[in-house]
Amino acid sequence: MAPPKSPTGATAARRWSTALTLIEPNRILVRGFRLDELMGRVNFAEAIYLLLTGELPSPSVGRLMDAMLVSFIDHGATPPSTLAARNAATTGASIRGSVAAGILGFGRYHGGDVLACRALLDDGLELARQGRSVAAAAAELVDRIVEQGELPPPGFGHRFHSVDPRATRLMQLAHELEFDQEYSQLIRAIEHALSCHASLKGRSLPVNIDGAIAAVCGDIGLPSEVADTLLIISRIPGLAAHALEEQRREKPMRAIDPTSYVYDGPSDRRVPERRK
Amino acid sequence: MAPPKSPTGATAARRWSTALTLIEPNRILVRGFRLDELMGRVNFAEAIYLLLTGELPSPSVGRLMDAMLVSFIDHGATPPSTLAARNAATTGASIRGSVAAGILGFGRYHGGDVLACRALLDDGLELARQGRSVAAAAAELVDRIVEQGELPPPGFGHRFHSVDPRATRLMQLAHELEFDQEYSQLIRAIEHALSCHASLKGRSLPVNIDGAIAAVCGDIGLPSEVADTLLIISRIPGLAAHALEEQRREKPMRAIDPTSYVYDGPSDRRVPERRK
Amino acid sequence: MAPPKSPTGATAARRWSTALTLIEPNRILVRGFRLDELMGRVNFAEAIYLLLTGELPSPSVGRLMDAMLVSFIDHGATPPSTLAARNAATTGASIRGSVAAGILGFGRYHGGDVLACRALLDDGLELARQGRSVAAAAAELVDRIVEQGELPPPGFGHRFHSVDPRATRLMQLAHELEFDQEYSQLIRAIEHALSCHASLKGRSLPVNIDGAIAAVCGDIGLPSEVADTLLIISRIPGLAAHALEEQRREKPMRAIDPTSYVYDGPSDRRVPERRK
Amino acid sequence: MAPPKSPTGATAARRWSTALTLIEPNRILVRGFRLDELMGRVNFAEAIYLLLTGELPSPSVGRLMDAMLVSFIDHGATPPSTLAARNAATTGASIRGSVAAGILGFGRYHGGDVLACRALLDDGLELARQGRSVAAAAAELVDRIVEQGELPPPGFGHRFHSVDPRATRLMQLAHELEFDQEYSQLIRAIEHALSCHASLKGRSLPVNIDGAIAAVCGDIGLPSEVADTLLIISRIPGLAAHALEEQRREKPMRAIDPTSYVYDGPSDRRVPERRK
Repeated sequence: MAPPKSPTGATAARRWSTALTLIEPNRILVRGFRLDELMGRVNFAEAIYLLLTGELPSPSVGRLMDAMLVSFIDHGATPPSTLAARNAATTGASIRGSVAAGILGFGRYHGGDVLACRALLDDGLELARQGRSVAAAAAELVDRIVEQGELPPPGFGHRFHSVDPRATRLMQLAHELEFDQEYSQLIRAIEHALSCHASLKGRSLPVNIDGAIAAVCGDIGLPSEVADTLLIISRIPGLAAHALEEQRREKPMRAIDPTSYVYDGPSDRRVPERRK
Repeated sequence: MAPPKSPTGATAARRWSTALTLIEPNRILVRGFRLDELMGRVNFAEAIYLLLTGELPSPSVGRLMDAMLVSFIDHGATPPSTLAARNAATTGASIRGSVAAGILGFGRYHGGDVLACRALLDDGLELARQGRSVAAAAAELVDRIVEQGELPPPGFGHRFHSVDPRATRLMQLAHELEFDQEYSQLIRAIEHALSCHASLKGRSLPVNIDGAIAAVCGDIGLPSEVADTLLIISRIPGLAAHALEEQRREKPMRAIDPTSYVYDGPSDRRVPERRK
Repeated sequence: MAPPKSPTGATAARRWSTALTLIEPNRILVRGFRLDELMGRVNFAEAIYLLLTGELPSPSVGRLMDAMLVSFIDHGATPPSTLAARNAATTGASIRGSVAAGILGFGRYHGGDVLACRALLDDGLELARQGRSVAAAAAELVDRIVEQGELPPPGFGHRFHSVDPRATRLMQLAHELEFDQEYSQLIRAIEHALSCHASLKGRSLPVNIDGAIAAVCGDIGLPSEVADTLLIISRIPGLAAHALEEQRREKPMRAIDPTSYVYDGPSDRRVPERRK
Repeated sequence: MAPPKSPTGATAARRWSTALTLIEPNRILVRGFRLDELMGRVNFAEAIYLLLTGELPSPSVGRLMDAMLVSFIDHGATPPSTLAARNAATTGASIRGSVAAGILGFGRYHGGDVLACRALLDDGLELARQGRSVAAAAAELVDRIVEQGELPPPGFGHRFHSVDPRATRLMQLAHELEFDQEYSQLIRAIEHALSCHASLKGRSLPVNIDGAIAAVCGDIGLPSEVADTLLIISRIPGLAAHALEEQRREKPMRAIDPTSYVYDGPSDRRVPERRK
């Protein structure tokens, strides 16, 4: 009997291609570079950039990649994604299964603002390309947002931080590395237009980390879907660390109340000078 | 009505603790360090080490972390984990859902050799602690393995590579950074004992990347479960890159034959000098 | 320290409610019925209906529930969802982990036609409510579909079956049980309008199983999202059976080519008379 | 370039077989039966049995399948599996993604007692096959369990119910249907031996639903791994119903405290007579 085609719509198998990794006896190429040669010469963030984009980053882009990946490394004990991972871990599930459960805890209300802000910025740049100044484009966007009642816009404001320290740092790094180009300029212009808007008097909506990442990814040339992929990669260590901590410190099968925990780690300490 | 206890065994909720991350208004501490201060000063691999172990790595340990994470960044198009991710991606599932499916494609036959090799090395170090030399402990382990027919031992040999270039490179880096201590010495001694064993004449079983990672994680002091967690983290970018490539280059709902693909990426190119 | 609010937007925990299941010592109520009393009196499909809708189904609705759940019980070896589950299973992952991977293999191109067809039918019924006859509403929908080049419409035609035997059977059962009401009438009218449309001459687009389920769920009063949930429930046994068969019959870590398999189960046999 | 073999151990693809489902144009066979003929003649539970075992169940076995699947249909709002699903759902994840997260919330401490109890019963039956009476085998098992401090044994006792109403009902149904054979006899003998054991005075350890399912699955001839697969299937409707209720009744991104909910569904009502 001939193997049947799929009844659900799969097309017949055919030869296909991948440009990611070549594996031959004793020789592994990632995007054309020998993997053993990459080891010790590029760091993990640079290798991620290489794998996702096809090229090695410049040293400045590499630093921004590291800063963005570090900025998202943990969101604390209360987000639903962390709780999905911890609820799996408390049943004795494997760390990897717990991480998978955690990833499933990113729906459209959680982790989607980077993409939504990027779309907003792309709209604004389209206006600018039609001849408006960046300030005028920003003002027009803000008018539209206020009219449509879509406040806060994605990438601005934070219900917990009045100023998001991660956003400040990322924007500053991009500035130091001379990567604050059209996306960064536009996001600052929008922040300014929001702060001046008559109907928002007194409401502070500074750029948050989602907005800063959206702008920086735009300025270093990462397509939206690559930026979104970066976010998932950056959240894995935190999910894994929570699953690991759950299994090390807590009894199995506990009821996890997200509002009744305390932080008992070290208090404020400084990053050693040698790293600056 | 009082909220009932769970019928499946959950204990009553109580105050619990986390030592990972503190989130206060405008101030985020990861393991006691301000997250915004870490950004730009430590790279992603160092931040992962910090999150998982509680301390910043020394520069040498940081370099080994990067080398290990880079070494596992992609395993090509054919492993079942990649195919699970691609089969999700071809249905139009999100990149994050595809990554989760890929993680579920790591069962006990796939991705478990690092832990199994670590257990073997711990057995050997136990023998050495009882007074045997490293060489004698290795010989005893190999005799036991051969007797019990458990060949190849986890961490040795490769069905595809006669010499695993990633293992060679990682062991060399550990040597250069003066981190080849008891675990590395023992794994080399086992490799030597295997090569000399009468019943294995002609069979080459060099240390592979799983073995090299097991040894290096041992020598830098990472507990087994942290080493295992590292592996999952290291495999995410590859799973994500395959899901992304699937959706960019292929038609939806295709039947993916893992034996009929070609690599069409760049051919061998060198890592630029500046990075060496 | 007061437990911090979530930085990602979680609102403060508060008392919440569930209407599904009450668990008290020695007494479990599902939607108000004692679970032990349901056991042996209602079958699994009826219990699923109860859990999802809050009420026990009539005997006729119960039979249609069973028919729909049975109709989707397996889609064979080639759909990406099955392959995601089998690729997890071949690595030695647990059956439950393999099932989870399989569920992740339902993206927007796979398993979404029931909902899309339901939306189409709801559009048509809206037209009918505005005063058109069912036939006129169907003709208008088909004109619109043809104009917009959206052929085949969701719920019609099949790339593999010229007549989907499951759809025929489900529509016939609904007819026998006097449940072919407005949704069923409309879907037949659309099928008729498609068969008569000048520009589709010779192209057969009969109602498929997705369309039949969409219509029957509509006529028995299930909201769209409940219909969608039913589909996921119905696909689990097939995913689990493939994962189980993979681990029983095949060697671990095999490369699974979806185009090179054969069916070696029993050939055509009849359902025993007593069940009719 | 020839497609490379996998470096992670996948063997070359080859022709493989499935005995589950044959799909030909206009003809679908599940285990040899036409799927359209099964629809309306066998119910969902019977079709699940057919798919997993290869044969249709007798009417009595069909009723026991239904009773077991119904008994596990929901475990309420507090188990970690439910919470993993609800934490995914609150982020706006799809119902299917939430169900997958819920499945990942079954680790070795949650949902594993059916298999563990089955292994205990198989040990006991092995003793009985060696010539002991069922009572003597039970007494020996209980002595061993008490000595090794493994109390309660899997399948006995409940931290919430003093008598598990589901277990009582399932055992009674198996008795009525004359299916209480060696596994059921042994589990009752163990229950009796536990109640008489000197060192357990006053501690009540009646058979719970996990134990009852283990015994009934044994007596109807289901292999362990099929029994385990049944459990996963039976838990899906509950996970889906919780995800659906979460999205219908609660605001997105809420912090879900598993100890502060109330049941607000109907109070005790009777299953209508016609179903008895």
